[in-house]
Amino acid sequence: MIQFSINKTVFLHALNITKRAISSKNAIPVLSTVKIDVTGEGITLTGSNGQISIEHFISVQDENAGLLVSSTGAILLEATFFINVVSSLPDIILDVQEIEQKQVVLTSGKSEITLKGKEADLYPRLQEVSTVKPLILETKLLKQTINETAFAASTQESRPILTGVHFVLTDNKKLKTVATDSHRMSQRKLTLDKAGDNFNVVIPSRSLREFTAVFTDDIETVEVYFSNNQMLFRSEHISFYTRLLEGTYPDTDRLIPTDFKTSVIFDAANLRYAMERARLLSNATQNGTVKLEITNGLVSAHVHSPEVGKVNEELDTLDVTGQDLVISFNPTYLIEALKAVSSEQVKISFISPVRPFTLVPNTENEEFIQLITPVRTN
Amino acid sequence: MIQFSINKTVFLHALNITKRAISSKNAIPVLSTVKIDVTGEGITLTGSNGQISIEHFISVQDENAGLLVSSTGAILLEATFFINVVSSLPDIILDVQEIEQKQVVLTSGKSEITLKGKEADLYPRLQEVSTVKPLILETKLLKQTINETAFAASTQESRPILTGVHFVLTDNKKLKTVATDSHRMSQRKLTLDKAGDNFNVVIPSRSLREFTAVFTDDIETVEVYFSNNQMLFRSEHISFYTRLLEGTYPDTDRLIPTDFKTSVIFDAANLRYAMERARLLSNATQNGTVKLEITNGLVSAHVHSPEVGKVNEELDTLDVTGQDLVISFNPTYLIEALKAVSSEQVKISFISPVRPFTLVPNTENEEFIQLITPVRTN
Repeated sequence: MIQFSINKTVFLHALNITKRAISSKNAIPVLSTVKIDVTGEGITLTGSNGQISIEHFISVQDENAGLLVSSTGAILLEATFFINVVSSLPDIILDVQEIEQKQVVLTSGKSEITLKGKEADLYPRLQEVSTVKPLILETKLLKQTINETAFAASTQESRPILTGVHFVLTDNKKLKTVATDSHRMSQRKLTLDKAGDNFNVVIPSRSLREFTAVFTDDIETVEVYFSNNQMLFRSEHISFYTRLLEGTYPDTDRLIPTDFKTSVIFDAANLRYAMERARLLSNATQNGTVKLEITNGLVSAHVHSPEVGKVNEELDTLDVTGQDLVISFNPTYLIEALKAVSSEQVKISFISPVRPFTLVPNTENEEFIQLITPVRTN
Repeated sequence: MIQFSINKTVFLHALNITKRAISSKNAIPVLSTVKIDVTGEGITLTGSNGQISIEHFISVQDENAGLLVSSTGAILLEATFFINVVSSLPDIILDVQEIEQKQVVLTSGKSEITLKGKEADLYPRLQEVSTVKPLILETKLLKQTINETAFAASTQESRPILTGVHFVLTDNKKLKTVATDSHRMSQRKLTLDKAGDNFNVVIPSRSLREFTAVFTDDIETVEVYFSNNQMLFRSEHISFYTRLLEGTYPDTDRLIPTDFKTSVIFDAANLRYAMERARLLSNATQNGTVKLEITNGLVSAHVHSPEVGKVNEELDTLDVTGQDLVISFNPTYLIEALKAVSSEQVKISFISPVRPFTLVPNTENEEFIQLITPVRTN
């Protein structure tokens, strides 16, 4: 029967990371628990929602953890409730002892709290990803790539494959990451420092968003492993499993146009604020669009809502080249595209009012391109 | 037709204060608008939900406001939408001009936004409180009194009078403030520096909570005026009207006991954390209570939930006097009572397991007393 003592702050930190995979309203009730595995080496906390699983390991070697294991074992405890109780304890040290009938006694200072647990065998066997030949990625780079693309994935289940982000490694070093919801697309390419086995997977964008929250910036690199329908991101303490989406991702390369007729360079922040103003009124129009007019080197934005009012605004530009153009689109797509760009200037290139336009950072050698589809307004 | 220019930050600040009285889902649609009254002296913004009304005045004399009135008038604009539009404008200066058909053109930088407004005459006549013979109160003192009492008012409409806070001025200087929801009570007495006419009113606790948000700490004093069924709090820029509750407030003086048998002095923070732990488990019990045991000078807290587990905790005390006692109560009431106290120590005094107990700051001359009713558990 379990018995250990541990630093409350370290334990709570690990519990809170594990909890990111736990939903209190899971259809499988046992998945609302956290699994606590105590061995001579340390404690493994496990949480899962069936799609994502997180394991957090606290080693007896870790000095900050002050972990002292007196007796090993495993148990399940209701996650949210257990975390609330632990965080409420008065002392910095916490003693955990299992007693009869799967009960756990937490002692801290003068406080003694007894909680009812469950048999660890009730927990489902979750994932098996063999950990040989890892691909090693810089956490920061991976998170940046996710932030640049995952927002463009679909949130609708009508085409499940589009709710994922397409990650493809070719030539052992060339990583391409793409997401699209069929109205807009975001693609980042980069070359890895360290080579790895080629792969071609579609990762749920929701899992990637959790990944960016779980792997904080102090974790320098992350090992990546693949199995048939799962993948594993692993750091020293954390193993983050996610299922992969099944099916073939659409060919997005053929969508990217090259035959541009008009190009404009904008200050990214200025353009974003202008689009946010436009959106306030476009939300009250029938098709929710803003109209961009490029005439004789001047660019202006227009929204007309018969109910609420209208916006007319001349946009600041740094450069305008090519033909005049009038094009309408959903300003939210442009706002989100601009949020994903870290460069101060962006270049937007158009072909015609009915063809997607592209947005790229106005810096050299950045392999980051976004596509937005216009809306036909008449 | 209205025409003025103004500093955006000052205008937005005033709009946001006015908006605190405006509900976007009011049963009277015109109350979702903000009324803008422009005169030669300045601009008055008015918002109301029928219970509370807030007027904010910006003077042409106010240098920070940079207000330049070219033409006077009045108009109504959809409050939330108008505020979002103003806050999105690019420049620090904003020009407002009324054009035909109750439309308003906002110009700022290169942005020009036209909004549809409504006829000012549609706005209801709200309140009339004659502003003679004010009672002058320190804002800080009034806000403290509200924070000490208003939380104890009822949130249920079954006895409407208990949703208010009872303010009584006697002897022109003695202010008594009481709130109770019949399970607990909080009463603060104080002596005013400046005398005023005696009054006896019941103010909705919700209005008082808005008051504390609207009157920031930089406003030193507030003028208070009463009419039949309304009252007005007024500062240099802000007039805050609230309706009063009708009916007679129950006599609470007779509830306050004096014949105590047991007294304990606690560190307020320690006791609060212990009660927060107890509450985690008491929430999962049938009657939601914690049991306090006082035996031979030792005080302990106990919760037993057959479903979730139990808490047993010895409480730190600074002094225990009188008889042994076992008493059960809802820990939330004690937690909220402790939050309302600013002193580091509190004195809790008991008569019996079935009589309300009192909580006072453990400092001399503080006329602040709270009452909590125990729960009979068998």
